[in-house]
Amino acid sequence: MIIVLKPGQKQAVIEEFVDKLTSRYDVKVNTWVGAHSTVLGLIGDTVSIDAEYIEAQDFVESVKRVQEPYKKANRKFHPEDTAVVLPSGAHIGGGGLTLIAGPCSVESEEQIVTVAKSVKASGATFLRGGAFKPRTSPYSFQGMQDEGLRLLSLAKRETGLPIVTEIMSIDHLPLFDDVDVIQVGARNMQNFELLKELGKIRKPILLKRGLANTIEELLMSAEYIMAGGNEQVILCERGIRTFETITRNTLDISAVPVLKRLSHLPVVVDPSHASGLNWLIEPLALAAAAVQADGLIIEVHNDPSHALCDGAQSITPAQFDVLAQKVSAVSAAVHAL
Amino acid sequence: MIIVLKPGQKQAVIEEFVDKLTSRYDVKVNTWVGAHSTVLGLIGDTVSIDAEYIEAQDFVESVKRVQEPYKKANRKFHPEDTAVVLPSGAHIGGGGLTLIAGPCSVESEEQIVTVAKSVKASGATFLRGGAFKPRTSPYSFQGMQDEGLRLLSLAKRETGLPIVTEIMSIDHLPLFDDVDVIQVGARNMQNFELLKELGKIRKPILLKRGLANTIEELLMSAEYIMAGGNEQVILCERGIRTFETITRNTLDISAVPVLKRLSHLPVVVDPSHASGLNWLIEPLALAAAAVQADGLIIEVHNDPSHALCDGAQSITPAQFDVLAQKVSAVSAAVHAL
Amino acid sequence: MIIVLKPGQKQAVIEEFVDKLTSRYDVKVNTWVGAHSTVLGLIGDTVSIDAEYIEAQDFVESVKRVQEPYKKANRKFHPEDTAVVLPSGAHIGGGGLTLIAGPCSVESEEQIVTVAKSVKASGATFLRGGAFKPRTSPYSFQGMQDEGLRLLSLAKRETGLPIVTEIMSIDHLPLFDDVDVIQVGARNMQNFELLKELGKIRKPILLKRGLANTIEELLMSAEYIMAGGNEQVILCERGIRTFETITRNTLDISAVPVLKRLSHLPVVVDPSHASGLNWLIEPLALAAAAVQADGLIIEVHNDPSHALCDGAQSITPAQFDVLAQKVSAVSAAVHAL
Amino acid sequence: MIIVLKPGQKQAVIEEFVDKLTSRYDVKVNTWVGAHSTVLGLIGDTVSIDAEYIEAQDFVESVKRVQEPYKKANRKFHPEDTAVVLPSGAHIGGGGLTLIAGPCSVESEEQIVTVAKSVKASGATFLRGGAFKPRTSPYSFQGMQDEGLRLLSLAKRETGLPIVTEIMSIDHLPLFDDVDVIQVGARNMQNFELLKELGKIRKPILLKRGLANTIEELLMSAEYIMAGGNEQVILCERGIRTFETITRNTLDISAVPVLKRLSHLPVVVDPSHASGLNWLIEPLALAAAAVQADGLIIEVHNDPSHALCDGAQSITPAQFDVLAQKVSAVSAAVHAL
Repeated sequence: MIIVLKPGQKQAVIEEFVDKLTSRYDVKVNTWVGAHSTVLGLIGDTVSIDAEYIEAQDFVESVKRVQEPYKKANRKFHPEDTAVVLPSGAHIGGGGLTLIAGPCSVESEEQIVTVAKSVKASGATFLRGGAFKPRTSPYSFQGMQDEGLRLLSLAKRETGLPIVTEIMSIDHLPLFDDVDVIQVGARNMQNFELLKELGKIRKPILLKRGLANTIEELLMSAEYIMAGGNEQVILCERGIRTFETITRNTLDISAVPVLKRLSHLPVVVDPSHASGLNWLIEPLALAAAAVQADGLIIEVHNDPSHALCDGAQSITPAQFDVLAQKVSAVSAAVHAL
Repeated sequence: MIIVLKPGQKQAVIEEFVDKLTSRYDVKVNTWVGAHSTVLGLIGDTVSIDAEYIEAQDFVESVKRVQEPYKKANRKFHPEDTAVVLPSGAHIGGGGLTLIAGPCSVESEEQIVTVAKSVKASGATFLRGGAFKPRTSPYSFQGMQDEGLRLLSLAKRETGLPIVTEIMSIDHLPLFDDVDVIQVGARNMQNFELLKELGKIRKPILLKRGLANTIEELLMSAEYIMAGGNEQVILCERGIRTFETITRNTLDISAVPVLKRLSHLPVVVDPSHASGLNWLIEPLALAAAAVQADGLIIEVHNDPSHALCDGAQSITPAQFDVLAQKVSAVSAAVHAL
Repeated sequence: MIIVLKPGQKQAVIEEFVDKLTSRYDVKVNTWVGAHSTVLGLIGDTVSIDAEYIEAQDFVESVKRVQEPYKKANRKFHPEDTAVVLPSGAHIGGGGLTLIAGPCSVESEEQIVTVAKSVKASGATFLRGGAFKPRTSPYSFQGMQDEGLRLLSLAKRETGLPIVTEIMSIDHLPLFDDVDVIQVGARNMQNFELLKELGKIRKPILLKRGLANTIEELLMSAEYIMAGGNEQVILCERGIRTFETITRNTLDISAVPVLKRLSHLPVVVDPSHASGLNWLIEPLALAAAAVQADGLIIEVHNDPSHALCDGAQSITPAQFDVLAQKVSAVSAAVHAL
Repeated sequence: MIIVLKPGQKQAVIEEFVDKLTSRYDVKVNTWVGAHSTVLGLIGDTVSIDAEYIEAQDFVESVKRVQEPYKKANRKFHPEDTAVVLPSGAHIGGGGLTLIAGPCSVESEEQIVTVAKSVKASGATFLRGGAFKPRTSPYSFQGMQDEGLRLLSLAKRETGLPIVTEIMSIDHLPLFDDVDVIQVGARNMQNFELLKELGKIRKPILLKRGLANTIEELLMSAEYIMAGGNEQVILCERGIRTFETITRNTLDISAVPVLKRLSHLPVVVDPSHASGLNWLIEPLALAAAAVQADGLIIEVHNDPSHALCDGAQSITPAQFDVLAQKVSAVSAAVHAL
């Protein structure tokens, strides 16, 4: 961390500040006195230093982090890729492109079992499906809730596919016993109390990037979970909010290679929410395969035009089957390079 | 709601769809058959119609809402301004510019009582102060939590100022008994489970706009609370995330007159978080007074350079005193017009 | 175009307005009178209708375009892909992935000829290189200008590679005689006077999307050129400005399939400017190949760390050679699907 | 400028780099060698240093500017406010709130003269009116062009009001002889060739902020004009592009106090383009007065619903008259503080 002081500081002020820094944090401070300004260089564990606190000092001109503000999620301290592996052997990360598929919302036993069987046949190794649904309007369908979770378990028993589903409140956690991967939605990426609780359990967490959150903030939210002891975090790029209106969000495809460079955690891409348009899902999935994402999470509905939510961004099982073949081909081509 | 169908639909398909609409929703449908396309006009209670569902129908070209998707927050159905009034008479809305002030975080009894007395003397009628703090990093100070709430109560007893403080989890609700106005932070604006719970209580809620949420989404989140029966919602503009980097966020000053036109709810402005820079707070507060915001929520710290969080965006009690006089003058000038 | 009128309009007002519309534009108007509002449906050549003009009428509630506001760039009126083909046979569009490569700036004869030979050997079929450089600071290197164009011509003679280079002013047009494809930079995407002039010539134009321009605005700028009679327009996605700061811009990879659906014009991707980071260029280029972009425009410098501009986003000829092989493999895999 | 080198650089590499910096630029370099990294501190005229060039060096970790990259626009080197004063005494900057008003487009002699007389009577001291109009669509009205300039001159002779009007091409400059203040529109803010030409003339330039340009980029564009010798630049905040869709753009009200802190140049606000909605113009104008903008530029049309462009964001002369009184009152209240 580099701290530039405002010109004309007294020696005593500087010394007192340096003493405070070294006593409060585990750092060494190198002081460089120039003709016009003084620069402090902090070496050591600067992660725990609150840059805002430093910037608030009235004699500080500016602060620049050299080191990233996250530790457990940081590839520098954990160079090898992390793979999330379930007891069954199903995995996300560690090579290959994992397909996670299923309907936006669980709607009925028949629907979820049919879709689960179908996506499994096409190569999906995880079943997704919403039981608790975050909806902008209180008047929209809010999901089947605990009944939805029950139907997911049933589909899991029928197909052997592990379940990925979203949690919206800490209080629902007891209902998630049979869930294999708990998803934190984009709107809860900075619901820090939820993240802290999820840090206490030992179950993989699929953490979606918030609509307007930076890549660094996503890693800081992963750090919240990991700091609690749960290191099985899967990062998910699902589109960010920009001025463009044709697509519902803008898929930040660069986030995949950037996240994989900064962090050792697996990265999956959600082309369904990123675009909001079913005809865009295939090309975006191919792009994700090309940048070596570890997985794809895709909305598949047996009857998109009658889906109770997000039908416009769902594809049919038949379309998913074609997509699965194509992404495999691109993934194979990329890994062969 | 105007629904444009794709060209070339069979009469039977259209009729079946119209039947479904009128049976499922409390609407009348007018069908207009043009040479090239068919347009349906829905009249009635279209608020509860899920536009996404309509758009997902494969014969639908596009959907356009004419009516807003919120009802209880809508000025059309509630033309008079809503004022949130406490038993003590302290109020937000209903005329005048309410000043809500206090430190980012509660840090000690001395600190919070000193600041509370000081801001009261300058004209503030509500005390703000964070007990639970949403911080990007798990390694940053997370607030004094329940002890912080205890100190706020103490400051309330000393000064008579009602308390505004942030909730971060439904589970903390029992601790908020003595809190007068519960704040929902920007990062929780779409934490729908929290909003639903807050709809069940009978206490004013100060709802901050999310960093990347539209004005309509803010009103939809207010609608979540109001749909539960709690109609005492105060809206808060606190800056949105844009590409500009000099300011931490971009204060969307237009949001104040827009919200007041669309809704009857009171609107306050938070210039501290909007800018992140203490020297910007006064001009932004004056701008808020000029557009007739109902209140200001401002971070005041007796020693900003030693504040445990957000010191860079806090002003001193002396600066707040000057600001209070200036905003009163501008507010008076505007109301006299 | 659907026009919703405000409730309670007199029949005479509506009739006068309909008369005005049908006399001024080549459209038919269908009027649908509902219980609460009146809706007008316009059929015909609505492209030339100024929606802002309609919205400004005091009895108009809202206007919704059903038809796109561009005609010549619209795939609906020109279903087959357009390919830009030079006399030499070099082409962009019409199948395959064209590689356009070369340095950010032309710096010397040796540099441009060396790079041109090198990228040609790796498979590039167009040479790019900046002679006139748009720089944020007036104190930064502004390009070699006419001397730069002379050196590009020299490199073209040495290698046979056609030239792509940027124009920054109409007044420079006479200098561009030997240039094969004229590039309009992101900052000039809505320099309408420049676009109009380029519509008068008969040379392909590579039109870059502006930093904050929508896909529709990009197509409208293409329409400016095409309306003048020059239909050889190549669209270029080069990243848009968002809140994310790790990458210089955010590559909107969705723009490629969206543009190809809406328009028949070829689409190329510029991963160099999109990211601003040389290690990101290869994955973004692979993503562009996966979504079937028609070409890539990439900055290659023989000595990036001594480049006079944008060195941080340039790759070396050796890195380009690897990239070229990889994108070919992915492109082949995608086209084989 | 602070340059952080990557760890493990050889002493010789560092020395060679320092020699290059001191020989190429007028700076002194202080080297601070820490245990893990080396930091260089550059003092002197760092404005002309191209930070991108430095960042491209393969041994450089990161670069941080301490000094702003603009000089002539910088308040540090010119502490007093700059006022643009015409021979007639009409001025922008130097105290007070200048009103610039007139129609979006000049449409006829009667229209421009009527509006000019009317806004003058209400207190405007400059007449605005578009002769050359930047329109997104080539099929929209492009302005009356040279005939529009002729009519503006006529209105100037009738009323004595100096003219502010937009230039869209260097080639039109000879037509602007009788224009008092030349406006550069948002879309041309980084049309650097145009800016260079305007730096050669001696006439005030009103420079609008681009839709997606930072405050620093606006100042860099002002620097382009000033570097050419024309120091009469007026900055204009007119709204930036964000995700919000209710308003056409988002007025960045903070830009006014930020620009006035960083620069000595006068700052005006354009509430018409910022909002795109006529009912928002008055509150935004009041906000601009509250933050002590030096002027307002407002679209006034005698018949907004029949305006040939931007009618929806124009107000009537009667509404302008009310607005003028109100902003004067707020401006007086603020200046009296």
